[in-house]
Amino acid sequence: MVEIDFEKENGLIPAVIQDATTLEVLMVGHMNRESWQKTLETGRACFWSRTRKKLWLKGETSGHFQEVKEIYLDCDGDTLVLKVNPIGGATCHTGFRSCFHHKYENGGWKIVGERIFDPKEVYEK
Amino acid sequence: MVEIDFEKENGLIPAVIQDATTLEVLMVGHMNRESWQKTLETGRACFWSRTRKKLWLKGETSGHFQEVKEIYLDCDGDTLVLKVNPIGGATCHTGFRSCFHHKYENGGWKIVGERIFDPKEVYEK
Repeated sequence: MVEIDFEKENGLIPAVIQDATTLEVLMVGHMNRESWQKTLETGRACFWSRTRKKLWLKGETSGHFQEVKEIYLDCDGDTLVLKVNPIGGATCHTGFRSCFHHKYENGGWKIVGERIFDPKEVYEK
Repeated sequence: MVEIDFEKENGLIPAVIQDATTLEVLMVGHMNRESWQKTLETGRACFWSRTRKKLWLKGETSGHFQEVKEIYLDCDGDTLVLKVNPIGGATCHTGFRSCFHHKYENGGWKIVGERIFDPKEVYEK
């Protein structure tokens, strides 16, 4: 029986966040045991912020919560995939639908994808 | 201009591997600068194996190479998404189409997904 292996990487495992409808990969966050429990309890994706070193309920500032629809674990128990409904449509703090809005073309990174909001209007009110 | 930040996590960045056609997440591997270069040169996904501590051209043993179709980088340059054509149809060393073949249901992990090959026939010949 597989279980989440939180110990492998200092208590944190990566969680790939995928749009449940379009299947676009929106972001990759990290979860510790506490954020995993909070994700299950609330039905909203909750991470451990490595930069702020605190629990991070995605959307707590912007209102752009991620409603969890399905959860998958990989063969060796060290990575999660969460299919979510991204409230508000934008996942990235820069206002783009996905954090993965740079596409590799001709040896460089080209901005692609859709900007849903202006971060100044969401975070600096 | 965004660039890949290999230094953030000891020279390794996670790479989410997604089926270019079905958009299913197949696996998450890790790349260092050398495997990134080899991926670009060969057009096939190449990782750094953290367990074997060596360069790992995915498919070199099984023949199940991943032909890279598109590459995306996230907002802070520390995670990649590769859309690939998975030769042979199976990504997981256990023979499943995806490494993420455990689904969370009723408090536990249920095996889901399709097994494409028997690992004994591929690896123990």
